[in-house]
Amino acid sequence: MTSGRQRDHGDPGDAPSAPPPLAPVANPRRPSAAEEARTIASSTNIGTLATLTAAGDPWASFVTYGLLGGAPVLCVSRMAEHGRNLEDDPRASLAIVAPSTDLDPLASGRITLAGNVQRPAGDEQIAARQAHLAAVTAARYYIDYSDFSLWVLRVQRVRWVGGYGRMDSAAGEDYLGASPDPVQPLAGPAIDHLNADHADALAAMARALGGFPDADGALCTGVDRYGLDLKVTSGRGIAYTRVGFTHPIGSVEELRSAAVELVRQARAAEGPVEG
Amino acid sequence: MTSGRQRDHGDPGDAPSAPPPLAPVANPRRPSAAEEARTIASSTNIGTLATLTAAGDPWASFVTYGLLGGAPVLCVSRMAEHGRNLEDDPRASLAIVAPSTDLDPLASGRITLAGNVQRPAGDEQIAARQAHLAAVTAARYYIDYSDFSLWVLRVQRVRWVGGYGRMDSAAGEDYLGASPDPVQPLAGPAIDHLNADHADALAAMARALGGFPDADGALCTGVDRYGLDLKVTSGRGIAYTRVGFTHPIGSVEELRSAAVELVRQARAAEGPVEG
Repeated sequence: MTSGRQRDHGDPGDAPSAPPPLAPVANPRRPSAAEEARTIASSTNIGTLATLTAAGDPWASFVTYGLLGGAPVLCVSRMAEHGRNLEDDPRASLAIVAPSTDLDPLASGRITLAGNVQRPAGDEQIAARQAHLAAVTAARYYIDYSDFSLWVLRVQRVRWVGGYGRMDSAAGEDYLGASPDPVQPLAGPAIDHLNADHADALAAMARALGGFPDADGALCTGVDRYGLDLKVTSGRGIAYTRVGFTHPIGSVEELRSAAVELVRQARAAEGPVEG
Repeated sequence: MTSGRQRDHGDPGDAPSAPPPLAPVANPRRPSAAEEARTIASSTNIGTLATLTAAGDPWASFVTYGLLGGAPVLCVSRMAEHGRNLEDDPRASLAIVAPSTDLDPLASGRITLAGNVQRPAGDEQIAARQAHLAAVTAARYYIDYSDFSLWVLRVQRVRWVGGYGRMDSAAGEDYLGASPDPVQPLAGPAIDHLNADHADALAAMARALGGFPDADGALCTGVDRYGLDLKVTSGRGIAYTRVGFTHPIGSVEELRSAAVELVRQARAAEGPVEG
């Protein structure tokens, strides 16, 4: 499932390493790179645009954006350098970083959406304007200034980095066809609850379903429509694994029953506990 | 003082507008664009790099950086697209956004530093490595991987945007010669104190020194080595102005006496209050 997602660095030998699983992971399904990227794009309204100057140099500049079916909608002034750049050459890419509280900035998810910008017209112009205003409230003060233009980025290729060692590319059409995760952005309180009140159940999942039969404990570090990310502690050290729901869930309201089902599976696999 | 800093948009007529001052601002000195940019560069360790792909397309990607005398020091892998891009073409720019709690993302300060990257060598290599590690703690885990390289961005030109209507360009040498503001990043508690306990003094400054003799009140919105930014309320609406210190200050410890001096000047200009 993760082939192509990980690459080996030329490790000088002193980086932290994680013990491998001792058994197959029961259901390792996780969001695709296209889905991860679509979720990150929906997680904020700010990014950095790369455009080309008149000399063909790369120009990075802060922008706001809305989303029209996954396509970023920019509203920029031609009095700004990036606005002039786009008028002269439509090639552009947009880097977006998922909001994170992690102290290590490289642990956070981020994407690059690359393609060409185009001025929307007709019905799409109206939809693009609404999409930008819905995401960027303050744009109502300048969106109708004559020097501002709306641009839709036609995404052709996508690069997603989920943090250390998690990365992949996606085609623009797969990104545009993906839906943002309905669970992940809202799962914070559920994660806190799982870790505070169901530590034993998480450890059982890690042992029976996550490939770590020697797990002493487990913390949930993320939830998405397909399952849970677990940080596992064992006598061999700290590792990360995955337990997948039986079926993808469509909302955070379905999380409780899906988690209960995982616990049931884990307990059944572990068998009755001897007194 | 602000010529070249502001531009008129093609205003459709419904944007918020601010009343102008009724008197000259006594000392409007504020940080130069080069100084503003240098302060923003020092305010964080993350930015977005624009590079050129093999096809000459602009590629935006998240990076961490340290600073070596104002020059960004990157540490990137050639297994990442931006790393390969830099090896093929040294042209690059780095967009940096100052950390902000403002709900309107376009109210925050940001810069673009543009130039060419170069691999540091000799003593500079050692200094660049230290500069990156000092800013990015986690880099110790990968900085010596054989696929990672240090790059120093030789800054040739700088664009600074301080928020709405505050923007200017600077030459790379002016940016590199500027020092980050010694006061602004540490001024938060002092600003809170001024606003909580010295509202009358701020209003007096706005009336006597800030060009708003009709000010009913004033809030301090920022402090730097050269003075205070004030948000002024009067019967004509809300406006923004500036009161400058007699001399630039070198640390946040000097702020109290510099502010006391401004109050003294303001009270003297306003004259004795009639019983």
